[in-house]
Amino acid sequence: MTHYTRVVNVFFKQVGRQAGQGTSRLDQIDGGQQLAEKAPSPQQDIGLKVLPGPLKVSIVGSGNWASAVSKIIGNNVKTTKKFASPVKMWVFEEIVNGRKLTDIINTDHENVKYLPGYRLPENVIATPSLSQAVQDADLLVFAFPHQFIRKICDELAEVVPRKARGLTLIKGIDEGPESLKLISDIIREKVNIDVSVLMGANLANEVAAEQFCETTIGSKVLQNGLLFKELFQTPNFRVTVVEDPDTVELCGALKNIVAMGSGFCDSFCCGNSTKAAVIRLGLMEMISFVRTFSKGQVSIATFLESCGVADLISTCYGGRNRKVAEAFARTGKSLEELEKEMLKGQKLQGPHTSAQVYRILKQKGLLDKFPLFTVVYQICYEGRAVTELIPCLQNHPEHRRRELGTSPALPHPSQGHTDTRT
Amino acid sequence: MTHYTRVVNVFFKQVGRQAGQGTSRLDQIDGGQQLAEKAPSPQQDIGLKVLPGPLKVSIVGSGNWASAVSKIIGNNVKTTKKFASPVKMWVFEEIVNGRKLTDIINTDHENVKYLPGYRLPENVIATPSLSQAVQDADLLVFAFPHQFIRKICDELAEVVPRKARGLTLIKGIDEGPESLKLISDIIREKVNIDVSVLMGANLANEVAAEQFCETTIGSKVLQNGLLFKELFQTPNFRVTVVEDPDTVELCGALKNIVAMGSGFCDSFCCGNSTKAAVIRLGLMEMISFVRTFSKGQVSIATFLESCGVADLISTCYGGRNRKVAEAFARTGKSLEELEKEMLKGQKLQGPHTSAQVYRILKQKGLLDKFPLFTVVYQICYEGRAVTELIPCLQNHPEHRRRELGTSPALPHPSQGHTDTRT
Repeated sequence: MTHYTRVVNVFFKQVGRQAGQGTSRLDQIDGGQQLAEKAPSPQQDIGLKVLPGPLKVSIVGSGNWASAVSKIIGNNVKTTKKFASPVKMWVFEEIVNGRKLTDIINTDHENVKYLPGYRLPENVIATPSLSQAVQDADLLVFAFPHQFIRKICDELAEVVPRKARGLTLIKGIDEGPESLKLISDIIREKVNIDVSVLMGANLANEVAAEQFCETTIGSKVLQNGLLFKELFQTPNFRVTVVEDPDTVELCGALKNIVAMGSGFCDSFCCGNSTKAAVIRLGLMEMISFVRTFSKGQVSIATFLESCGVADLISTCYGGRNRKVAEAFARTGKSLEELEKEMLKGQKLQGPHTSAQVYRILKQKGLLDKFPLFTVVYQICYEGRAVTELIPCLQNHPEHRRRELGTSPALPHPSQGHTDTRT
Repeated sequence: MTHYTRVVNVFFKQVGRQAGQGTSRLDQIDGGQQLAEKAPSPQQDIGLKVLPGPLKVSIVGSGNWASAVSKIIGNNVKTTKKFASPVKMWVFEEIVNGRKLTDIINTDHENVKYLPGYRLPENVIATPSLSQAVQDADLLVFAFPHQFIRKICDELAEVVPRKARGLTLIKGIDEGPESLKLISDIIREKVNIDVSVLMGANLANEVAAEQFCETTIGSKVLQNGLLFKELFQTPNFRVTVVEDPDTVELCGALKNIVAMGSGFCDSFCCGNSTKAAVIRLGLMEMISFVRTFSKGQVSIATFLESCGVADLISTCYGGRNRKVAEAFARTGKSLEELEKEMLKGQKLQGPHTSAQVYRILKQKGLLDKFPLFTVVYQICYEGRAVTELIPCLQNHPEHRRRELGTSPALPHPSQGHTDTRT
């Protein structure tokens, strides 16, 4: 019996002992008192029903971001009886320095490949078996590259308990046969559970280093959002819950297109004013896109949360999409070459998302309403010159229409968007 | 007769010839067709009444920003008969390299002291006499340091024609006996004219270099805002007009407090996530402050314009308030020393504005609602450690209340702030 097997066995024994303990946890939720002030909607009824014992948490994924949040979750579950202490983490098994990655995590408590230098809590237990990782989960945290979403969800569909609630940290969008499809939609459809979304200005290593930051959880079922807030919130990781998860999720994907635009801008003009205009017009296109394609409600206030303006700012100044875009323009190398050189072969999300958005907009005849999104795609894939970014913005629809109260991004003031105080 | 005197004489002859030409220009305003779709409000009636001949423009001020906009205005007036070609610029007379600054501007067409390296249009005519500069003005552009506002307005009150309309580019706030007072309020009260406001992510030298950027004009009288838009807009200087000038003006002042916070943050933590949180919470305090103290309507959408989020971003990454704040924290030198060393003795606006805001908030018992504004003041003036910035933000009112729909900054969704599309 290897050490790894022993650890996993010990883990499953621990989990087994905890199963069946305790009673419904609805009354223990922090937000309980707050929620009492709101009548639950029918949708909320699908939230926290009978919850046997401490809630068991599983993290599906073990990359940089998954490892950083495992540090938060592993520590947080120890502070309350509401959550079971062992936190399972599904790890796509790899051999690192001659050892299995799961083995390294379970014995050295460090993800040496994806989050080196940070000690993970000992109650974060890595397992290479997806079904074992999730089979008794109450709370599922999805954190892996979005290209694997369908395959992983197909596997999960067979084993995830119906009572489970999901939270996706996956950035990106997908395309359905007719139009846009969200990652959370795929999870909902395939795994058939309620899914919340967490996005924000959160660089994994900074979160792992416990630097102060904020994040946003979007949840159709507010109770579930508040429960995940409890799982994630620390003094240095401040969580706000909003009720339009599609907005939160789309912000996390679309910001990478704007970051590409910022990087192109950085390559040929050194002005802060121009870059601020590119970011702002990008934000307006994000709002306009979300308002056009979101199935649910859209609150402009959500764009002022961490998932909106804050994540956009940090991505446009510090992110890798910006950096590679600048290098793309300066060196003339292909995106593939730069991904190899600068990202160790990882895929850059901005260009891919811009291509998906471009196809969706083209299909709907809306390209002229989104000149920044469009030109980013054309620079990435159709050889358009980066310097054409600016002429494309000089007559942006935002400039032409704002005075008439028909901003593509914002509701007309008569729709109640103006608040008056005296 | 000096060359300067000759130039000024020629100028006044030109102006004299143009007086009396033409008819009402209301019909020539770009926005005319747009405005026809809206019934004019009583307030709008005080807008463009009888306007004799091409509109005469005067710029009150000749610093870096005034000179940059004189370049735009001087060129724009030549493209339409709506505006008189000579643009007067009041220059506080100084001797530069043994010559009068007005003389240098009128002969060499360069403001060698405040905007060196950029040629000003020849129709921008400098005059050292404030009364001569403004006495027949239709449109007055205010662009000088805000500490001179009362003295200059007292002089202007005697000579500015009643028909004139003003536009202030001055950043900063003032204090009245009871609470906040805006620079535009002082102009309105003392000079008794309608005043619009122009603010945005516009660094003077970048505007002078004709780099692409956006700006915002706030105007209680929409017609006047649209007229100033015509005066300022170029392909690379895109103007949006909104109808809540107080919001526009307060954004221009309050962002400098947030920029100080960003600079402090930069001095002790290198994280993008933390800085993004500081900027976002700063934006939320700006919104909350404007909603608390603005006399007129407040549109959340205006915070998404160039004067809001874009100016905030560029100031928090590129501005001098950020830079000096970082140096203040790193070197331990006083703000006065740093102003001398880094700004050639010019006053930094952030600390001054934070002190005014602090007094206003203290008087109203609202300090705990604005922890960032408060701690910036305390770091600047009360010796509080910069590292206390973060603990002050860990329990920000925004985090505590958002779920209850009682965000201090944002209207409750039931106030119509949520827009639903399917």
